Amino acid sequence: MADPSASPPLTRAGVQAAHELIKPYIHRTPVLTSTTLDEIASTPRTGSLEGTRWGQEGRTPARPRLRLWFKCENFQKIGAFKARGAFHAVERLKREEGWEEGGGRERGVVTHSSGNHAQALSLAAKTNNIKAYIVMPTISAPPKIAATRDYGAEIIFSGSTSVEREAVTEKVMADTGARLVPPYDHPDIILGQGTLGLELQEQVRELVGGGGGGKGLDAIVAPCGGGGMLSGVALSAEGTGVKVFGSEPLEGGADDGMRGYYSGERVEKVSSLTIADGLRTPVGKYPWGIIYERKLVSGMYNVTEEEIKSAMRLVYERMKLVVEPSACVPLAVALYNEDFRSMVEKEAGEDGWDVGIVFSGGNVELSALGKLFA
Amino acid sequence: MADPSASPPLTRAGVQAAHELIKPYIHRTPVLTSTTLDEIASTPRTGSLEGTRWGQEGRTPARPRLRLWFKCENFQKIGAFKARGAFHAVERLKREEGWEEGGGRERGVVTHSSGNHAQALSLAAKTNNIKAYIVMPTISAPPKIAATRDYGAEIIFSGSTSVEREAVTEKVMADTGARLVPPYDHPDIILGQGTLGLELQEQVRELVGGGGGGKGLDAIVAPCGGGGMLSGVALSAEGTGVKVFGSEPLEGGADDGMRGYYSGERVEKVSSLTIADGLRTPVGKYPWGIIYERKLVSGMYNVTEEEIKSAMRLVYERMKLVVEPSACVPLAVALYNEDFRSMVEKEAGEDGWDVGIVFSGGNVELSALGKLFA
Repeated sequence: MADPSASPPLTRAGVQAAHELIKPYIHRTPVLTSTTLDEIASTPRTGSLEGTRWGQEGRTPARPRLRLWFKCENFQKIGAFKARGAFHAVERLKREEGWEEGGGRERGVVTHSSGNHAQALSLAAKTNNIKAYIVMPTISAPPKIAATRDYGAEIIFSGSTSVEREAVTEKVMADTGARLVPPYDHPDIILGQGTLGLELQEQVRELVGGGGGGKGLDAIVAPCGGGGMLSGVALSAEGTGVKVFGSEPLEGGADDGMRGYYSGERVEKVSSLTIADGLRTPVGKYPWGIIYERKLVSGMYNVTEEEIKSAMRLVYERMKLVVEPSACVPLAVALYNEDFRSMVEKEAGEDGWDVGIVFSGGNVELSALGKLFA
Repeated sequence: MADPSASPPLTRAGVQAAHELIKPYIHRTPVLTSTTLDEIASTPRTGSLEGTRWGQEGRTPARPRLRLWFKCENFQKIGAFKARGAFHAVERLKREEGWEEGGGRERGVVTHSSGNHAQALSLAAKTNNIKAYIVMPTISAPPKIAATRDYGAEIIFSGSTSVEREAVTEKVMADTGARLVPPYDHPDIILGQGTLGLELQEQVRELVGGGGGGKGLDAIVAPCGGGGMLSGVALSAEGTGVKVFGSEPLEGGADDGMRGYYSGERVEKVSSLTIADGLRTPVGKYPWGIIYERKLVSGMYNVTEEEIKSAMRLVYERMKLVVEPSACVPLAVALYNEDFRSMVEKEAGEDGWDVGIVFSGGNVELSALGKLFA
């Protein structure tokens, strides 16, 4: 990977610089709204919250007013926001002194991933005529292997533990001189992912104010896995007054970011099988510095598997959009997390809040979808 | 229903007049493109077509060049184009002499449908503070009953044969004075549905030419069930040089429109269980006059169930859009019907064609989706 110390600064200006570099390669994905979902979000949850995890506290349901703005990264290249970080990492490598002359293009790039980052890096490399190696567990789903190979990458198989995967990745680096492009724990990746936050703020101002003069967003809720995107979005909002919140699955402890955030100590290991499979990883060191140490994230919230599925069903049935489970976690927070909803009610009052909701990706297999909703 | 003889003329100007009436109530749905689908559509089907229904003729795969423009009526109110016709029918009723004074609003409207037309009419009535009765078979899926009731309609149950449904509908009309709004076989409905064709032509000119000066579409492919929408779209293109084609499922004889078109005789009965459940009905009399007698439709094409499913999978996986099976029939024609593809190759040559593809709706149950792709 590019030397992190040579990366642009982890600031809003750094994200803006990243945006200039990757604009020619990525989609400015649309921002959509839904009056139906606004209504649901602005209606108190029925009953006394009995049977929910908020019921025991004897709370009454919150009455926030929410206007939701959905940033549709499911329409991004390769079907997820990961294209942004990968293209930025590659653009940074291309600009590194001596990289081109030293045969960097032929030596290539490498990562271990069986998900969206694998496809994103493969596409960014192919677009730039750079060799790409992707280390994947032998047990990866055949369609994922095929999709990554379709983007022109060379697949190297490994065992499925992280130790096995890292060993194979290091061997590829030693054998080929390929440079590592990690999925989230690197400044270039963080800055790249943050560009979606810039666009979202800008697009909502355009949509509300007719030409950039509108009031714009009050807050953004983003999913948090390794934290690369959440921290990038937080940078994109630094100094703007737009608050950024993280969202995670509760299942199996995948809310490591939240637990770390409120205990003051980064959780380094997670082994969850949440349906939000993009959010099973612990928060990385660079993201942690932005999210927690610099407090650029204003709060973290978690949701249950049922809440994720319920949000997902609404997106399919009401918005007619294909999104993956991980992408539904921010909406689930807005609809079902009573802590979040109470906070909005208190902070926003009668005016309510305009909240950006990040639909992070849409890569879900139809057969898996069938099982989820059978 | 409104007296058909009092309807605006079945011409492009009639569609334009309908558009003016319903614009305040409907969405101008977006037109999307997909470079991946353009590539697939512009690549000859692999192999010798063996194993397909074109194989026996010893044909070589056609090489059309296709640029596809998708009119996303899955984003329309109630999730399908049917809102256009229903709102137009209601607007026409409101303008009928003596309707308001005669208590038309309280007497209301009635139709028998368990699908998109039921929801469309319910919404159009509710929006205008008009009473709506919907006759539905007792065996209708509970979510469809609930959705229609959510729009404020009164549900009247009937047996499931068309004779039983019509008898109940007539009884409602006799008891209440409600006016019938049929699903497709009426000029007001046809003119309303046709408005999507006007928008599609206009939007493609905007997108291609930057402000309305572009070359625009060469053709539109629309699904054909009762033929209300296909004939309306054909009217919207009359005299413009844009060719309109119909598309139907082959399964169980649901390609009645095509068989009628090429034999010269309207097929009056169909009993098909095609997965494209919106296209199981025979073409109505008014649509037939436009499609066949006036020859405003330039050709009809059919596709197999597997072709519909394959197109549907591409829309979900590549475009990240939720569409119902009926909505995938035009795309399936563009990708898989060798007669259509050969015709485009011959007519368009190297320049290729810009083809509007109507995504007619997105109302599919997630559990049904699971079964389709299990």
